[in-house]
Amino acid sequence: MLKVGVVGCTGYSGQELVDILLDHPGVEITCLTARFDKPEIYSDVYPRFKGRTSLVCESLNVDAVCEKTDLIFTALPHTISMDVVPRFIEKGKKVIDLSADYRLSSKEYTNAYRKEHSDVENIDKAVYGLPEMNRDKIKKAFLVANPGCYPTSVILGLLPIIKEVKQAGLNIVVDSKSGASGAGRKADISLSFSEINENFKCYKPNEHQHIPEMESILSRVVKGEIQVNFIPHLLPVTRGILSSIYIEDKGVGAEAALRKKYVDYFSGEPFIRISEQNYMPGIRDVAGTNYCDIGIKIVRGMIIIVSVIDNLLKGASGQAVQNMNIMFGLDETAGLK
Amino acid sequence: MLKVGVVGCTGYSGQELVDILLDHPGVEITCLTARFDKPEIYSDVYPRFKGRTSLVCESLNVDAVCEKTDLIFTALPHTISMDVVPRFIEKGKKVIDLSADYRLSSKEYTNAYRKEHSDVENIDKAVYGLPEMNRDKIKKAFLVANPGCYPTSVILGLLPIIKEVKQAGLNIVVDSKSGASGAGRKADISLSFSEINENFKCYKPNEHQHIPEMESILSRVVKGEIQVNFIPHLLPVTRGILSSIYIEDKGVGAEAALRKKYVDYFSGEPFIRISEQNYMPGIRDVAGTNYCDIGIKIVRGMIIIVSVIDNLLKGASGQAVQNMNIMFGLDETAGLK
Amino acid sequence: MLKVGVVGCTGYSGQELVDILLDHPGVEITCLTARFDKPEIYSDVYPRFKGRTSLVCESLNVDAVCEKTDLIFTALPHTISMDVVPRFIEKGKKVIDLSADYRLSSKEYTNAYRKEHSDVENIDKAVYGLPEMNRDKIKKAFLVANPGCYPTSVILGLLPIIKEVKQAGLNIVVDSKSGASGAGRKADISLSFSEINENFKCYKPNEHQHIPEMESILSRVVKGEIQVNFIPHLLPVTRGILSSIYIEDKGVGAEAALRKKYVDYFSGEPFIRISEQNYMPGIRDVAGTNYCDIGIKIVRGMIIIVSVIDNLLKGASGQAVQNMNIMFGLDETAGLK
Amino acid sequence: MLKVGVVGCTGYSGQELVDILLDHPGVEITCLTARFDKPEIYSDVYPRFKGRTSLVCESLNVDAVCEKTDLIFTALPHTISMDVVPRFIEKGKKVIDLSADYRLSSKEYTNAYRKEHSDVENIDKAVYGLPEMNRDKIKKAFLVANPGCYPTSVILGLLPIIKEVKQAGLNIVVDSKSGASGAGRKADISLSFSEINENFKCYKPNEHQHIPEMESILSRVVKGEIQVNFIPHLLPVTRGILSSIYIEDKGVGAEAALRKKYVDYFSGEPFIRISEQNYMPGIRDVAGTNYCDIGIKIVRGMIIIVSVIDNLLKGASGQAVQNMNIMFGLDETAGLK
Repeated sequence: MLKVGVVGCTGYSGQELVDILLDHPGVEITCLTARFDKPEIYSDVYPRFKGRTSLVCESLNVDAVCEKTDLIFTALPHTISMDVVPRFIEKGKKVIDLSADYRLSSKEYTNAYRKEHSDVENIDKAVYGLPEMNRDKIKKAFLVANPGCYPTSVILGLLPIIKEVKQAGLNIVVDSKSGASGAGRKADISLSFSEINENFKCYKPNEHQHIPEMESILSRVVKGEIQVNFIPHLLPVTRGILSSIYIEDKGVGAEAALRKKYVDYFSGEPFIRISEQNYMPGIRDVAGTNYCDIGIKIVRGMIIIVSVIDNLLKGASGQAVQNMNIMFGLDETAGLK
Repeated sequence: MLKVGVVGCTGYSGQELVDILLDHPGVEITCLTARFDKPEIYSDVYPRFKGRTSLVCESLNVDAVCEKTDLIFTALPHTISMDVVPRFIEKGKKVIDLSADYRLSSKEYTNAYRKEHSDVENIDKAVYGLPEMNRDKIKKAFLVANPGCYPTSVILGLLPIIKEVKQAGLNIVVDSKSGASGAGRKADISLSFSEINENFKCYKPNEHQHIPEMESILSRVVKGEIQVNFIPHLLPVTRGILSSIYIEDKGVGAEAALRKKYVDYFSGEPFIRISEQNYMPGIRDVAGTNYCDIGIKIVRGMIIIVSVIDNLLKGASGQAVQNMNIMFGLDETAGLK
Repeated sequence: MLKVGVVGCTGYSGQELVDILLDHPGVEITCLTARFDKPEIYSDVYPRFKGRTSLVCESLNVDAVCEKTDLIFTALPHTISMDVVPRFIEKGKKVIDLSADYRLSSKEYTNAYRKEHSDVENIDKAVYGLPEMNRDKIKKAFLVANPGCYPTSVILGLLPIIKEVKQAGLNIVVDSKSGASGAGRKADISLSFSEINENFKCYKPNEHQHIPEMESILSRVVKGEIQVNFIPHLLPVTRGILSSIYIEDKGVGAEAALRKKYVDYFSGEPFIRISEQNYMPGIRDVAGTNYCDIGIKIVRGMIIIVSVIDNLLKGASGQAVQNMNIMFGLDETAGLK
Repeated sequence: MLKVGVVGCTGYSGQELVDILLDHPGVEITCLTARFDKPEIYSDVYPRFKGRTSLVCESLNVDAVCEKTDLIFTALPHTISMDVVPRFIEKGKKVIDLSADYRLSSKEYTNAYRKEHSDVENIDKAVYGLPEMNRDKIKKAFLVANPGCYPTSVILGLLPIIKEVKQAGLNIVVDSKSGASGAGRKADISLSFSEINENFKCYKPNEHQHIPEMESILSRVVKGEIQVNFIPHLLPVTRGILSSIYIEDKGVGAEAALRKKYVDYFSGEPFIRISEQNYMPGIRDVAGTNYCDIGIKIVRGMIIIVSVIDNLLKGASGQAVQNMNIMFGLDETAGLK
C-alpha cells in the first residue's frame, strides 16, 4: 500500500483528493494537514466523510508528514506551494503539486510574472503532469506540476492540431465556461450564491492568469510562439468546464479527417473520448468522472472544438491521482472508476 | 415629492429599496449612505443601476441626511440600527427601520435576549410595520419597525386562526424554506455558491432568532402565550420564502369554511391573495412582487397552510415601501405595481 | 387607452407580455387567446396573475379579437403566425408579431429556407422591429416583426462597427449563451430540469435558425454579405442571453475610441447602456429589465464585445412593448420602468 | 461473475443502475432493454457511457433476457412492472423490482388502491427490500420490492422510535423535499427547467401515493395502525431527499438518550450514519452516495429528526444493488464505494 499525505485538505481540490484516495485500492492516506488552530477529526469538519475515515487533520509539520508518507499531494494556494514543496523534496519525498507554482519553466515564469521564482531549482525539474503529453516523464518524476483546470481542457482540445494551426498562422479563440468550484473555497461576496445564481458573465477577458500556462505548454509542442485568446466565463453550476475553441478553417481539412486525427492522436488514452459525429459533449457527460470529452465540427468555414472536463477531477484531483498511478506503476485508472 | 434617504444601500434589502424607490411616482431618493472609504457613484458600484440614478453614495453623516430628507429608511445590520435610529428621531425625522432592533417591546426584548435594549425610549414607541395588522398605527407612526421576512410569512399565515388555535391548545409546527438572499450580502463560505447549490438543509431548528418576533406579535393578538415551533431551511434559490404550517385539525372545521375565514379576514388587503381550492402557491407565484399568497388544505385531520412571499419584497423592502405609502398618505400600492 | 389583444398568451413571451401590459399606464388588455378546449379564467391557469386581471382566455376568433382591439400582439409558434397575421391585417388592424415569420424579406426568406413564404405580401411590408435601427419606420408600420432574442443581442453588439468590420474583411465569431426560457414553454425531455440543471452545452453550432436573421439584417446595413459565425449554448438559468463577440483587431483602433464609437452610436437610446471601462456586464445587470448592456474590451489584438439582454424582455416582450409605444406615439419607455 | 439484466434502462433509476453495475467488481451486465424502435448502442443514446460499455439496448424479449441473466432488475413505470415481473419469476429468475408494484401485501394494496392487484401470487411473496429491516428475508428472496425514495427516508428516520411513538399516541408530521429527478424522466411542462428553477412548492399534501407504503411498512413494525402526515415539496436540485420529521416530545426522553437509541438501533449498518450532536445533515452530505444520514434534535418540546438520502441511490438504484449484494452473498457494500 502506497502511503500518501494530503497537505491542504480543506479546499475543494483537497477534499476531492481525499474522496478519491479513500476508495483507491492501492493507497492509504496516512496524514492530512490544514491550517487549523488545533487538530480536528476530519469527518467532524466535513460530515460527508463520516464513517469513511477517522483521520485527524493537523497543521503542517514537514518532518511528521515525511515520516508517514511515500508521496505527498500539495493542494495549497498559489505562491504558498513554492515555500512548502522544496522542504519535502529535500527530504527525498515525491510530490504532486496542485498549485500553479511549478507549471512553467523558470524562464517562462519570469517572462509571465516579471519576477524570479523562489524555487528555481525545482521548478526546472518539475514535470508538467498532463499524462497525454508527458506520460514517460511523469513515470520518472519526483515532482509533478499538476495542470490547471482551464489549461487541461484547452491544451487537450488543441494538441492534435496545434502544429498545423501554428504552421497556417491561424487565430485561436477560446471561450471557456467554468463552474463556481473552480474559484476555490473562500469567503468572498463575489462567490456567494446570490451573486452567481441566475447570473453569467465573463471575467479577465484575454487576461486570465492561466494564459501563460496554456501558451507555454503549447509553445513547447510547436517549438515557437502560440497565442491563445482566452476568455473565461463563470457558470452557475458547481462543477465542470466547457471550452469552445474557434479556429478559421483554412486548409485544416474536412470534418471526418479532423475527427480521425483526434481519434488517432488520443488512441489508447483511458480518459479521452472523442465524441461521435454530430454530437457536442456537455458538462453532464463528464461531471463526476476523470474524462475529457472532445467534440469536433466544421461548419461554414469554422472549426469548432468543444472540450469538456470536470474541473475538480480531470482538471485537478482526478488528474493528480492519474499522475500518482503513473509515477508508482499502478493501473493508470485505479481509483478513478 | 417625498424626499427619502436610504441608510445602508449596499445589502440586498438596501439595493432592492433603491430599485423600488427609483420607479416610485411619488418619491425622490435624495441620499444614499454606506460604509464606503470615499464617495462613490452608486451605479459604478452596482452597474445594474446605470442610467437610472446618478446619486453618489457617501458614508453616513446624520445632519446631512436629515437636511435632505423627509423619511429615512435604515437598512443596517441588527444591533447597528439602534445606535443610528435615535439620532434621526431626535431631529424629528420619520424612520422605517428594516433591522430587527425595534420589532419587540422593551420587555419582550429583555425576555428574548436577556439584556436591556439600548434605545428603550424608541423601541416602545415603534410600530410593528405589518399593515394587515397595524395599518392605523402605521399611519401615525414616526418609527416603523419593518417585520422580518420569516415572521411576515408565518404571522400572515396564522393571523386568521391564531385565536382559535390558542383556545384549542393546538400545537403549531412551521417548516420554513428561504432563498439565500435572506442571509444577507456578506463574505461567508457557508453562503458561497458551491455550498448552497444542489444542497438543502435545515439550520437553527426551533432556535432561530426570528422566533421571539413571531411569538411576541402573535401573543399580542391572542393576549396570551403562543409557541411557534419554527424550523427554517436554506433553499438553493435567490429569492422567496415558503412556510408550511401544520396544525392538527381538532375542531377548527371544514376546509371551505377555513378558506372563507381567510378570505374574509384579509378582505380588501391589496397584497394578500388566498389561493383557490386545491391550489398550493409556490415561490414563483410571488417572486418579484409584494404579494403574500396563502394556500389552505385540510387532509386526513391535518390543517396545512402554505404562506409564500418574496423575502426581499413583502419580506423586507416592498413592505417597507408599503409602510411608507401608508405613513405619508400615498396610494398603498404605489411603486409596488 | 389603447386596446390590445394578446394572441397566444400561454408561452413564456405571451405571459411576459400580459405581465407588462397589465401595468402599462396607457394600455388596456381587452382579449387573450390560446388554444384552450374551453374558456378559462387566465389567473386560474396562471395563479401569479390572480388579483391583477379577471380576463377570460378563449380560443382564437379573428372577428371577435378585431372588434375589441386597436393592436394585436401575436405570440405564436413559428410558421403558425403567417397563417393568422394576414387575417388581422386585412381587417385593418396593426400587428406586432413575436414569431420569426416576418423578420426577413421574401427574398431572404426563400434563400434561407429554400421555399417561398406563404404571406409574401405582408412579409415585404413588415418592419423589422429593432428601434435602435428602424425607429422611424416602426412609427409608420402596420406590421412589426419583433426581432429574435439572439439576433437582438448580436445585432446591437455589432451595429456600431459592422461597416468597418465588413470593410476590413474581418471574421466574426459569436459565442452566445441563453437561459432555458429561450427554448419556449413545452413538454420536452431535453428541456426538463434534471437535464439542464448542472449542465452546459452548445447546440446547433453555426447552424442555428437565427443565423439568417442576423446576417440578413446586418447585410442590409453594410449593403453586402456578412457572415456571422454563431454558436449558441444552453445556460442553466431561466432568463438572459449573453453574447460574447470576437473580432481580430486589425485597424479598428484603440479601446477608448471604440467605446466612444458605441456611446455616440447609441446616444439617446433609452435602453442601451455602454458599460464603463474595465467592466463587462453580466446577465444579472439586465435581468428583469428592457436594457441591452454592452461591454467593450481590446486585449492582445482581440476585440471582445459582450452584449447582454433579458431574452424575454429586450429579446421578446419588452421590445414588443417598446415597439408598440413607438407605433402609437406613447412614451417609448412606458410600462418598461 | 453474476450476470444481470436491466429491464428499463432509460429512466434516471435505470441509468443510475447501469452506472453502478458497470463498476461493480462482482457483476457483469449482460443485457439492457428499453422501448426502442430498433436496437441502439447504449452509449450512443447516453454518451456519458461511451468507453464504459458497448452493450446494445433492445426492446424486451423475456426469453432472451432469461437466457443471459441470473438476476433481473426491473426499472419500469408503476403498473407496467406487474405485467412483466411474473414472466421472469415463472422462468425461475430472481428479480429486484424498482417500481411500486410489489411493496405492499395484496391486502394492503387493495385497501390503498381500491382494486385487486393483478399478480397476487407474487406480491404476497415479495420481500420489502429495506435491508435495515429485512436483511434476512432479502437473503432468501426471489423477488425483492425495492422501496420508494420518500418511504426509505421516512421509514429509516422513524424505525428506532416508531413503537414508542405509537404507544404514546403521538402525531407524526413529515415535511419532505425532493430533487426533480424523483419525478422521473419524462416530457412534462411541469418538470421543465423554467418551471422548477427558482421555484419551490408543495404538491399532493398528505395525499401522495407513497403514503400507503410508509404507513403499511411502519404498521407491520408496530402491529397496529400508523398515520404519517406526509407533505412532499419539489426542490430545485437534481438529486436528494431531505425529510424533516416532527413529533411532540411527550415522554420520549432526552436528546442524548434518543440519539443513543438511533446509534444502537442502526449499529453495524454500513449505510446509516447518525449525525453528531448539534449537526443536522444536508443533501450534499449524501449526494452521490448510498448513505442515509439522520440528525436528531429535541428543542422546546419538539423532536426534530432529519433524514437525508440521495433519491437515486439509497432511494432507488443504490439500494437495489445493496439488495442484490445481500441476495447473492456478495459484500453488502460492493459497487457502492
